[in-house]
Amino acid sequence: MSLVIVGSLAFDTIQTPDVRREKVVGGSCTYCSVAASFFTSPKIVGVVGEDFPDETIALFKKRKIDIEGLEFSKGKTFHWEGLYGHDPNQRKTVKLELNVFADFKPRLPLSYRESGIVFLANIHPELQEDIRIQFTNPEWVAMDTITHWIENNRAPLLDVLKKCRLFFCNDEEIKLLTAEPNLIKAGNRILEMGPSYVVIKKGEHGALMLGKDFAFGVLAHPCEDVVDPTGAGDSFAGGFLGYLDSVKNVDKKELRRAAVFGSVMASYAIEDFGIERFKSLTFSEIKKRFLEFREFVTF
Amino acid sequence: MSLVIVGSLAFDTIQTPDVRREKVVGGSCTYCSVAASFFTSPKIVGVVGEDFPDETIALFKKRKIDIEGLEFSKGKTFHWEGLYGHDPNQRKTVKLELNVFADFKPRLPLSYRESGIVFLANIHPELQEDIRIQFTNPEWVAMDTITHWIENNRAPLLDVLKKCRLFFCNDEEIKLLTAEPNLIKAGNRILEMGPSYVVIKKGEHGALMLGKDFAFGVLAHPCEDVVDPTGAGDSFAGGFLGYLDSVKNVDKKELRRAAVFGSVMASYAIEDFGIERFKSLTFSEIKKRFLEFREFVTF
Repeated sequence: MSLVIVGSLAFDTIQTPDVRREKVVGGSCTYCSVAASFFTSPKIVGVVGEDFPDETIALFKKRKIDIEGLEFSKGKTFHWEGLYGHDPNQRKTVKLELNVFADFKPRLPLSYRESGIVFLANIHPELQEDIRIQFTNPEWVAMDTITHWIENNRAPLLDVLKKCRLFFCNDEEIKLLTAEPNLIKAGNRILEMGPSYVVIKKGEHGALMLGKDFAFGVLAHPCEDVVDPTGAGDSFAGGFLGYLDSVKNVDKKELRRAAVFGSVMASYAIEDFGIERFKSLTFSEIKKRFLEFREFVTF
Repeated sequence: MSLVIVGSLAFDTIQTPDVRREKVVGGSCTYCSVAASFFTSPKIVGVVGEDFPDETIALFKKRKIDIEGLEFSKGKTFHWEGLYGHDPNQRKTVKLELNVFADFKPRLPLSYRESGIVFLANIHPELQEDIRIQFTNPEWVAMDTITHWIENNRAPLLDVLKKCRLFFCNDEEIKLLTAEPNLIKAGNRILEMGPSYVVIKKGEHGALMLGKDFAFGVLAHPCEDVVDPTGAGDSFAGGFLGYLDSVKNVDKKELRRAAVFGSVMASYAIEDFGIERFKSLTFSEIKKRFLEFREFVTF
């Protein structure tokens, strides 16, 4: 079908309880596209500044990521700084410099418009909608968001959500969006708002996918050392949608597998800072962990 | 092998965000033994006062629970009052009246001493140890505890733990006991303290069982309405140990199934106040939900 990923490319400054790392290459589009590239050749939409490393662009090309929709702008790349406590599921945004992202108004390359799967990763919901309408007739529109937009831009967010088939969120976001403390009820509320499927990511507790008459749960890989939780959610979406793009007939069985491949990619992402772990990752390691996920829950 | 359950029989006053119920029959031994009675005929050890309902004693007998080790004392039954917020995983003890439990020093009936499985449910760790040593040579000693003993009676608690083969706890308790925020690390710390297996109950996120070279995860049943979370953990232990007592050869496959039957019983317990749901529950409903647990995670 071909997969387009729209989102941020960034420098992240990451502070964990043990370590501080500056200018780590990150952003939702970066994590998601590199994770998806193990399953398909994603096309990306985003913007970088003059300081974005050539090495990362070379990595995108090596991994057959189509960068025709990537804008190279004058100025500095988007910069995010975050702080993690001992619970890697909770983080605080310390600094946010939009830089080249401030005036980003993408026009989709013609070669992107017929794509079957569109992922609107976390960006301003109005920008998500501006991009969504440039696609002809995608079979799957998926989106993600963060609490910032839920709190400050609720109306445009609900507007994009209505037109999405698949909504990715975490437990904190869905509770905020629906005012429902019970995740099953919260998920069912989302299904009333437009999407056919909702995937609730729960960090160390795994993920839950709900649809009409459909529920699937996947446990997180038992992990002793979370080096850097940044990008776990975007890597999940990348694995999920990359796998979906690689299968001929998407049915519920394939959706279950997609959620597991999403979890596999998230479990690798957190083993090192930024996209470092993906640089050495092989498809046979991905398949091995997929089988470990199965072994972990089989009875 | 035969299963002995040692713990409390109580009246609970339960306050949820929606409802207040007074003098609900509860206690760790009550929940655990009724849950276990769907798989085996458990023997119980505990104490009740003159106010304990005949109806519950009749239910025990009907469900083939052996009450030879149940003491009937002058005075009032143990009384616990708890408050639940919107997150059913978090509760506050509002009142605790030991009553007949204050002077409880059980001597095991002779017919109990050769039992193969002993469950020391949540009571004072010194009392757990006093009872444990009265058994001849149990194949499985399992125990549970609460944060109160971890905070105030750590030394005797570690002493019983050392001699246990299986430790049941929840995520809050294991983090407090090991000072490890990561559950996998925390679980491995417990395995260094004595037990061969640890089961970490995580409420709506399911449960995790760890052993040497062994990890198994079970997701909670997707549940929209938690009526009363009281006794979920004890019902889990009852389902787990009751099933274990019913199988001939306990291997890792059976331990996995035991954890699922534990989850099934916990999922039914929270559907109504006290042990109400168990009164109408049938074994075919248990088997049906067991299969739903499998369907939920299969890919």
